[in-house]
Amino acid sequence: MNNNIVNGNIIRIDVGDNVDKFSRNNRISAITKVLLDNPNKVINLNYFTEMLNAAKSTISEDLVMIKQSFSALDMGSVETVAGASGGVKYVVGVSEEQSRRFAGELCETISDRSRIMPGNFIYMTDIMYSPEVIHKAGAILASRFIDVEVDYVVTVETKGIPLAYEVAKSLGVQLVIVRRESKVTEGPTVTINYVSGSSGRIQNMSLAKRLLKKNSKCIFIDDFMKAGGTALGILDLLKEFESELIGIGVLIDNVDTSKKLVTDYISIIDYYGIHEDGSVQFSPSKFYK
Amino acid sequence: MNNNIVNGNIIRIDVGDNVDKFSRNNRISAITKVLLDNPNKVINLNYFTEMLNAAKSTISEDLVMIKQSFSALDMGSVETVAGASGGVKYVVGVSEEQSRRFAGELCETISDRSRIMPGNFIYMTDIMYSPEVIHKAGAILASRFIDVEVDYVVTVETKGIPLAYEVAKSLGVQLVIVRRESKVTEGPTVTINYVSGSSGRIQNMSLAKRLLKKNSKCIFIDDFMKAGGTALGILDLLKEFESELIGIGVLIDNVDTSKKLVTDYISIIDYYGIHEDGSVQFSPSKFYK
Repeated sequence: MNNNIVNGNIIRIDVGDNVDKFSRNNRISAITKVLLDNPNKVINLNYFTEMLNAAKSTISEDLVMIKQSFSALDMGSVETVAGASGGVKYVVGVSEEQSRRFAGELCETISDRSRIMPGNFIYMTDIMYSPEVIHKAGAILASRFIDVEVDYVVTVETKGIPLAYEVAKSLGVQLVIVRRESKVTEGPTVTINYVSGSSGRIQNMSLAKRLLKKNSKCIFIDDFMKAGGTALGILDLLKEFESELIGIGVLIDNVDTSKKLVTDYISIIDYYGIHEDGSVQFSPSKFYK
Repeated sequence: MNNNIVNGNIIRIDVGDNVDKFSRNNRISAITKVLLDNPNKVINLNYFTEMLNAAKSTISEDLVMIKQSFSALDMGSVETVAGASGGVKYVVGVSEEQSRRFAGELCETISDRSRIMPGNFIYMTDIMYSPEVIHKAGAILASRFIDVEVDYVVTVETKGIPLAYEVAKSLGVQLVIVRRESKVTEGPTVTINYVSGSSGRIQNMSLAKRLLKKNSKCIFIDDFMKAGGTALGILDLLKEFESELIGIGVLIDNVDTSKKLVTDYISIIDYYGIHEDGSVQFSPSKFYK
């Protein structure tokens, strides 16, 4: 770009008509990409004036257009943040109708009887590793936590990691992965024991001390919730970091569980178990009813 | 949207001037978002005509503008795919200059001496869990594999999962995560033993048979490569699936390793070990020189 930065001020250099001049249409496409690449991050308007060699007033007009179309087409929103460190940010948003439709389609996919494994587990690993599904599921969960202040998205290895990553990305915060055992490459770790709510077995979870700052607000994201023992374990682990669990979100909630250890959480799909006729019973989460 | 779908044909319903009519600027912003949400996936133009209530010729003109700005600003490309199942797709692309700048900035961040752990490991977990870093690193690695036909992006748990997920998403393919032990919820698995190239220890890796189709072409993505024992293990594991390893990409290559077991791979950053003055030695990968 043909700009020089002197003492922090951007000085425009006249570049003539054919160099680095973009039409409004070009600019709108470029600004949209930058916003989408940086969800929930405030981008200063100087970034766009420099990148596109355009005046601030021009960029502001471009942004009005982008705001309009995001709002009209239910694609999330573009918000202006005032003040010295202000600018604009893209805020992920998925309407209830879009969420319900996504949940319905996913229920159909995973209700296939060929997914029933020995022990009546439902095979869902391919779903949890599908960027197409997980990108949308992550946006849905993130849009439910967009109004609270979150410092970290926490998950426990392994299957929920892509989903938790997408939620962290949409919220513009760091992902934290809790391990089953401590690793030599991560320095001092805190390890706790917890009781798996469904099997009653005692298990470990470990987290490197460097990964999570004290006094943080965290949400826990996982692929599947049965009794909620893992979520309780995370709550205990976070206490060791003097940090708070302020929300829980899962893709699939096994509602066919006699007793839930946690009550305050959100899910996208409810699982009712295998019916006596052999069919697999899923439906969009109770949150959509 | 005010369209009815009858026998698979979309019938436009006249909606008047004020309903569902979007300006070119609005449409360009919306089309850009849909393209970016679906990297390397062909989207039929009917999708846009229906969503935006516009004629195909109008959408085609919009796409010309979007192609222009992506190309002018080095933001990847928008390509037209001809034929009955044709349409347009967004193709991730990161220029060599952008990659080198990213690598240089990341080297600075991770060269901090406070990252040296007992045993001379360098603490990099926070980097691997940062959506900001991993989104860019994933786009860089994906753009190096964009011209080959890839069926799956394979990784091994745990730290490389976010990076492998981003590469899979950018390439528009399924992610496959190899586990350290087999899981009851995934059905029959194939397990192999392999020798870690640096420690000489024998380790396990397991993959559910359902997760990877025979005769597939795969790339292996990981956070860090030392001798390359894990990559060789993946090669062996894929043979059990009659599948091929056609590429390897890592964020950081430890070049301070006496003997590499694999030679054909790409990396973003080279690690030269800890200098005798105590400084941590990183530099942008040899691929940028």
